[in-house]
Amino acid sequence: MNQGQILAKIKKLGEEIEQQAEAGKSPHIVMRARGIGNVNFDEKNKLLTMGDKQMARSFLNIAHARKFMQTIMVANLCRRLVEADKHASIRELYYQLKHTIDKTKENTFDGQEESDPVVEDLERTLDILREQMNLTADRRGYLYGNIKIIDAGDTINCAKLGRGGYGIPSTVEELELTEVDADFALVIETAAMYERLIEEKFAKKSNAILIATQGQAARGVRRLIHRINDEAKLPVIVYTDGDPYGYYIYSVIKMGSINLAYLSNELGTPKCKFIGMTMTDIEKYGLEKVTEKLKDMDIKRLKEEMEYPWFQDRHWQNELKKMLKGGVRIEQQALANKSLEFVAKKYLPEKISREEFLP
Amino acid sequence: MNQGQILAKIKKLGEEIEQQAEAGKSPHIVMRARGIGNVNFDEKNKLLTMGDKQMARSFLNIAHARKFMQTIMVANLCRRLVEADKHASIRELYYQLKHTIDKTKENTFDGQEESDPVVEDLERTLDILREQMNLTADRRGYLYGNIKIIDAGDTINCAKLGRGGYGIPSTVEELELTEVDADFALVIETAAMYERLIEEKFAKKSNAILIATQGQAARGVRRLIHRINDEAKLPVIVYTDGDPYGYYIYSVIKMGSINLAYLSNELGTPKCKFIGMTMTDIEKYGLEKVTEKLKDMDIKRLKEEMEYPWFQDRHWQNELKKMLKGGVRIEQQALANKSLEFVAKKYLPEKISREEFLP
Repeated sequence: MNQGQILAKIKKLGEEIEQQAEAGKSPHIVMRARGIGNVNFDEKNKLLTMGDKQMARSFLNIAHARKFMQTIMVANLCRRLVEADKHASIRELYYQLKHTIDKTKENTFDGQEESDPVVEDLERTLDILREQMNLTADRRGYLYGNIKIIDAGDTINCAKLGRGGYGIPSTVEELELTEVDADFALVIETAAMYERLIEEKFAKKSNAILIATQGQAARGVRRLIHRINDEAKLPVIVYTDGDPYGYYIYSVIKMGSINLAYLSNELGTPKCKFIGMTMTDIEKYGLEKVTEKLKDMDIKRLKEEMEYPWFQDRHWQNELKKMLKGGVRIEQQALANKSLEFVAKKYLPEKISREEFLP
Repeated sequence: MNQGQILAKIKKLGEEIEQQAEAGKSPHIVMRARGIGNVNFDEKNKLLTMGDKQMARSFLNIAHARKFMQTIMVANLCRRLVEADKHASIRELYYQLKHTIDKTKENTFDGQEESDPVVEDLERTLDILREQMNLTADRRGYLYGNIKIIDAGDTINCAKLGRGGYGIPSTVEELELTEVDADFALVIETAAMYERLIEEKFAKKSNAILIATQGQAARGVRRLIHRINDEAKLPVIVYTDGDPYGYYIYSVIKMGSINLAYLSNELGTPKCKFIGMTMTDIEKYGLEKVTEKLKDMDIKRLKEEMEYPWFQDRHWQNELKKMLKGGVRIEQQALANKSLEFVAKKYLPEKISREEFLP
């Protein structure tokens, strides 16, 4: 979607409200309903998707009036941002819009926890990503390998950035991906493992692009993974710690999150596969001594995950049950117990060549 | 210090222990004592420094034997890393060294919380940074502007990396800084403000290098700031939120931390100055409406800071007292309430040209 189309969508929202007001009706905004009750798991496409339930927000409804005003304010700021070709962080958006309404003691927004959901509401109303409306958030994540990125007029060769790699911005909409020369992309949970693989020249030897998420993947990172898979046609392999948190990171990259189900088409990468760490790895590679005990909250999380429709596949159930039975988790970096090179020279190449992936 | 000198120091430690054992003495390691009792504030040089108190760790002392063994194990791994020109994260170090001692149920290390302090002990013993012994930790922070960095054979122009900038690695020892063309370096607490300043072309217009710490500055970032000041001779200005946490970030960048006082010479930048946010800014720029209330823990932290010798300067006391009296904090991004451009076009240039800094 280009800038003109985005502007047109925002303006259309404003015009509709104007027309409603002029026709003597209560101005209202219609958007898809939020919450788990309106989220479905699309088994065929392996994506969390939004249902058809809708909700309306009316100006002349005392329970809606404040949110209605806030939605219009956010839409208006986004219009100005896109027109001026400028970005604002969602924190700045809050500060930009916060003021006391004339002749009252009422603030437009009392905290960012009020403005963030309104931004998501606007996304669900207009079917536009906040990134496309030039809103940013804190950045996280790195990219390394044979891919060139054109960003703000600079062409960046991500294989020529030393050991550091490219810091992925919070908004990747404006990035152009060119000259992608790799067989697959490996998405890695920890930055330390990413640095290990760079040092071991894994990217060069395996002709891979490396992406570090640094924990839960930020929206910018998820969008970039999606684009690398969708535009550059690279298979995506995800490599996390072997614990409920790591498996959740994988599932969010693959099929989106409940909260942002309306964005799964843009942020999800349903074709990606999971390489490890698995509970099977522990026996296979003799890692029993370097596991860690599950904490109570890990076990609680694990039991929740066992119920998720997208973990019903028998291979996943097998892993999750093993974890529950063994009561342990295993980190990516536990492989260092074998040797520092082990992960790059044996573990990953072996599993990749045998296609030992979880779906 | 080059690789040969670092290796020589580690080997000397081993040789001394060997000699002690051969002479029939209990092998022991002498190091500077840790803890606040052995930390001084060097008023003249504005640095936290380590006192002269020493402690010995003996093999034949039942209270020391485990730590003694651990220290030797860590030293040995570091020797191997430096010899092989390889890096390991402190997490990998833990996993590499963890094993059950033959014919016992005793583990060499029971958690990373045991190995991390031993790494610091070794630093205090040998007077070498862990980074110089090829140990890494999680990375954080970005660099942008007219500076070229040579890293692993690649020359990276930090002004030509789009809006992303250069992701600062956890270890910057191997980086070579060249072609630094700037009037000063601005160190920024939040990545979002860093992105704002890049978008506003502040780096180009003010001929500045921008460094984002993303909260408390990681060791790699502090070391890079130190080197940019020390080697490249750039003045350093620090820009944080106006709260006890932001002021602490500044003080750690400036004169080091109590925990790592033995490293202040390598990590501290005593000549750096503080630009904001200050409590005075709130009145001056009419930001009363976009402050946030201090929480109880903020007030506790604030009162502690008021007692620190390095905050005794009357300008700082004035600010800290104002904060306590007003009971509010102010974020960098609160300036967006004026306009998105305000920070880059007015706030920073005005304060810099008038040299409105805190010491």
